[in-house]
Amino acid sequence: MENRIMKISARNQLKGTIVDVVKGATTSHVRIDIGGGAIVTAAITNEAVEELKLAKGKSATALIKASDVLVAID
Amino acid sequence: MENRIMKISARNQLKGTIVDVVKGATTSHVRIDIGGGAIVTAAITNEAVEELKLAKGKSATALIKASDVLVAID
Amino acid sequence: MENRIMKISARNQLKGTIVDVVKGATTSHVRIDIGGGAIVTAAITNEAVEELKLAKGKSATALIKASDVLVAID
Amino acid sequence: MENRIMKISARNQLKGTIVDVVKGATTSHVRIDIGGGAIVTAAITNEAVEELKLAKGKSATALIKASDVLVAID
Amino acid sequence: MENRIMKISARNQLKGTIVDVVKGATTSHVRIDIGGGAIVTAAITNEAVEELKLAKGKSATALIKASDVLVAID
Amino acid sequence: MENRIMKISARNQLKGTIVDVVKGATTSHVRIDIGGGAIVTAAITNEAVEELKLAKGKSATALIKASDVLVAID
Repeated sequence: MENRIMKISARNQLKGTIVDVVKGATTSHVRIDIGGGAIVTAAITNEAVEELKLAKGKSATALIKASDVLVAID
Repeated sequence: MENRIMKISARNQLKGTIVDVVKGATTSHVRIDIGGGAIVTAAITNEAVEELKLAKGKSATALIKASDVLVAID
Repeated sequence: MENRIMKISARNQLKGTIVDVVKGATTSHVRIDIGGGAIVTAAITNEAVEELKLAKGKSATALIKASDVLVAID
Repeated sequence: MENRIMKISARNQLKGTIVDVVKGATTSHVRIDIGGGAIVTAAITNEAVEELKLAKGKSATALIKASDVLVAID
Repeated sequence: MENRIMKISARNQLKGTIVDVVKGATTSHVRIDIGGGAIVTAAITNEAVEELKLAKGKSATALIKASDVLVAID
Repeated sequence: MENRIMKISARNQLKGTIVDVVKGATTSHVRIDIGGGAIVTAAITNEAVEELKLAKGKSATALIKASDVLVAID
């Protein structure tokens, strides 16, 4: 497992604080408050949650590839 | 094409204002200022840009599925 | 949560009727009959299922970004 | 390159006929008529288009992972 | 379900041997040893695991679309 | 932009050496030799290529979320 990555290609790197972590059978939902009233939800493996010791109150960055973002208008 | 969708399953729906639209041969990059100093980049088809008439200064929402979000820590 | 989206960039918007919803610990599977004998399965969060009140027999649209579609030939 | 795959995990395998192929600088858009008036657009690499010899009128299957499908309701 | 696909557009097709399959409520994790000490983890539906009869010791190929790969540097 | 990420949730982190970088109008293809005869192709934005100074011969890690991996069998 890679532990000292310094730069990553993802265009969207939103820093914040973990609001809660909900574990399922294999998939966890991690919610990150990125400021300005916005919360980002990530669905990741339970293994990742354990390995990164993700928990409420910790700092974390949500990474999102530009090709995974859709755009909507009213 | 569906034009009156009212609710969508995506957990992440970040509202903002389009900062710029850069068109490529088939893929465009749309950057949306979602406030708090954060800008989200979406890579979508040129057809979508034209159909939604996306342009600098317009309001838009970035939609991101929870399963497309990665989490990083320092 | 955005509730009045009118247009969305996704190239693939397949309308149909929900056939069944199977809830897991954090992830649900929603199957939508889009006609012509084709059924599309979506894996989404339980929260989305509850928020949109997805249930068997209801109308729903499957949204798929063009960059998430692979092509196979015989 | 794997050329004789018999079964694949993708829940969504929509068979149809290619309507058109539009090549960009690195990314092509392939549109597949899957019947019932529905057309699915795939954004794939130019290399894939060449390797699979994708062209208008040929049979092709659109493959979509369940975790890449969003659900919308009116 | 499509059972005799011969060629697929995915740029990344990594052959290997299944190391283990962990089933969750709706999502399974399948780990494939692709050689050279590298193991690839796939999160797929339980239905796919059953349909393809995936199990420890069997041969399998991990398919990954180029647009789903991020790049990191130290 | 986040420059000092130490740990990332992606289950698949494949280290290697960049074989070539092909730039398109907005999207680049980066190919990474991960050893054992396997090459992984990433489709990322031109901006990411420039920011990370990706070039032939440099070390790089391909990051892939488990939910983006499909499984195929013969």
